[in-house]
Amino acid sequence: MRRALELARAEVGSTGSNPAVGCVLLDAEGTTVATGVHRGPGTPHAEVDALRRARGRHRGTTAVVTLEPCDHQGRTGPCSKALIEAGVRRVLYAVADPNRVAAGGARRLADAGVEVVGGVLGAEAEAVLEMWLTAVRAGRPFVTWKFAATLDGRSAAADGSARWISSAESRADAHELRARHDAVLVGSGTWRSDDPRLDLRHGVVGHPPLRIALDARGELPPDSRLLDGAAPTLVVTDPATGTADHGESESNNNSGLNTSTNTSTSTSRGANSGPDVLRLKTDARGHFPPLDLLAALDGRGVRSVLVEGGPALAASFVRAGLVDRVVAYVAPLLLGSEGVSATGPLGIGSIREAHRFRITSVDRIGPDLRIELRPPARTGGTQ
Amino acid sequence: MRRALELARAEVGSTGSNPAVGCVLLDAEGTTVATGVHRGPGTPHAEVDALRRARGRHRGTTAVVTLEPCDHQGRTGPCSKALIEAGVRRVLYAVADPNRVAAGGARRLADAGVEVVGGVLGAEAEAVLEMWLTAVRAGRPFVTWKFAATLDGRSAAADGSARWISSAESRADAHELRARHDAVLVGSGTWRSDDPRLDLRHGVVGHPPLRIALDARGELPPDSRLLDGAAPTLVVTDPATGTADHGESESNNNSGLNTSTNTSTSTSRGANSGPDVLRLKTDARGHFPPLDLLAALDGRGVRSVLVEGGPALAASFVRAGLVDRVVAYVAPLLLGSEGVSATGPLGIGSIREAHRFRITSVDRIGPDLRIELRPPARTGGTQ
Repeated sequence: MRRALELARAEVGSTGSNPAVGCVLLDAEGTTVATGVHRGPGTPHAEVDALRRARGRHRGTTAVVTLEPCDHQGRTGPCSKALIEAGVRRVLYAVADPNRVAAGGARRLADAGVEVVGGVLGAEAEAVLEMWLTAVRAGRPFVTWKFAATLDGRSAAADGSARWISSAESRADAHELRARHDAVLVGSGTWRSDDPRLDLRHGVVGHPPLRIALDARGELPPDSRLLDGAAPTLVVTDPATGTADHGESESNNNSGLNTSTNTSTSTSRGANSGPDVLRLKTDARGHFPPLDLLAALDGRGVRSVLVEGGPALAASFVRAGLVDRVVAYVAPLLLGSEGVSATGPLGIGSIREAHRFRITSVDRIGPDLRIELRPPARTGGTQ
Repeated sequence: MRRALELARAEVGSTGSNPAVGCVLLDAEGTTVATGVHRGPGTPHAEVDALRRARGRHRGTTAVVTLEPCDHQGRTGPCSKALIEAGVRRVLYAVADPNRVAAGGARRLADAGVEVVGGVLGAEAEAVLEMWLTAVRAGRPFVTWKFAATLDGRSAAADGSARWISSAESRADAHELRARHDAVLVGSGTWRSDDPRLDLRHGVVGHPPLRIALDARGELPPDSRLLDGAAPTLVVTDPATGTADHGESESNNNSGLNTSTNTSTSTSRGANSGPDVLRLKTDARGHFPPLDLLAALDGRGVRSVLVEGGPALAASFVRAGLVDRVVAYVAPLLLGSEGVSATGPLGIGSIREAHRFRITSVDRIGPDLRIELRPPARTGGTQ
């Protein structure tokens, strides 16, 4: 199972809307016959991948798989059936499938006389599948809020300068974090001040995440790096903004935007085709309600979102209780009270109302600290 | 030497203006004959303490001592002479005495035919003696700035409530930190809002530190806990404030203050005798210049100061480059931009001007993090 988990872990962030799953086929002596992984929608599931690689030596093997084999005919057939037909003798899995449509594989296997054991290294597998499980259970993408700040909680100096608060080592780690998410999200303050690329650099390889720019008023400049076509981009704008028939000034008509209605259809992730546009209603203050945004992204198959800033956007997710994980890069610097606060307004008057998390890991990265936090109780719910 | 360092470590914070030193006497077989420690001014030095406890079995022994034996006749005689007269054969020490008045012990011992080896576990001993060595080398007390803050750098909520940002475990650790310092310093904002005791609680035993309250305008209320007589207190005030002949309102005449001139005489640390008063000129903005304050405290035999708050006071020490160590208790809470900043104004406009430290230790304490930082280069200087 450890080997299967390793295989799965390596695919986290590269499997789109599907979970990262690993599978190992063992013969009666416990020798590995073949391994398999799932690489995303439309590609074989890990079990089928392993069966194919076994080149006929699959009969009588034990399949060790990180997620309960599916019992669902999607673009690929049900794995339960494939395992039965292949003559697999025993199936060990780690985590039960939380997906109502796909669940039932263990039952079908047992009914067919296959020995089935679930929950093997369940906690470790839950950690590997954390983002996907949260997304499926909560019906919205898993949200990581990442920020870099000084020891006194500042994300920029008084003049807005922030390059670089964190070290090159921390920034490389942050790019690794990007590669593990389906999408990266920034608010208008961030693209206005930083003109970020939001791509994978620092030697990080992997599936480039969907770049999402909030742009309620349709003001994202056509020459923004986010519109460079180097990776897929989704621009979120208000329905009242930027359409040709809206009659506003030309500055609201961004060149090359492929407008689309806010439906649950899959986003084309092909590059060089211009960004997709998601139309979403803003609230009275002109902000996108975080839960509405996440629901729309869920409909587009996004299972994990990395919120990269800025402070106001992050604060809106914290206030809504929609942060599943915080990754803070804390640099041993002081900028003082004149600096820009790493968190925006949380509407907190008294200490009793503070948002509470728990520290789940601490690592020293170069001169900095990398602190991971999660909500106090892992309910997996939306609030 | 490890045993001698353990003995010394246990005394840090209890030896007043003198260093914490440990000594072990070993016979020819390496068996411990006696151990000794120094417990502060007027008490025997560690070497003499060990010689006395040896009950006549000191001849031919090896003395292992954490600091070079002194060569100075103060209230106690020079240790170099005592060791020679006791017939000690060999002396191993860790750190050379930086004190010009007391140095020369190694030389005198060698001249008398005693085998002398210096620098044994020197780095470890430097760490044990860090505060005292910095104080002697820089001519001012070692300064630790301690604060508790949220992950977003807030030391209180918008309404000023701060109990409790950090956990009971962190607060107990902070009391342990107090016990390791000669003095604890707070500004007027802190005694105004918190009315702190600044004593040792949470089961911490040790020498209670001198409590220092900055009170430029002579407004410390007579019923303040800092004036409860439970531990010695020093009130620092401006010479233009609070004297009977100053002609100001009676509210400036605090009851029970023993006024004294700003000289270098030793402070009486007896309790129940009312606080001592240090008169020190404030700058144009009404603040005490940190270096002037430290110089006055040095003259009173204070070798280490724990700056406990608030943000403005800490900022004045950071700006002056007078922080030798930061101890930050970071709680996994968020208070948002409305919260009170843990650092005051540092006068920083751009990221290039940020005050830089290096992280020297990170520990998880209960739900919190305890992060220790020191200046990038340990010059031991004042700037």
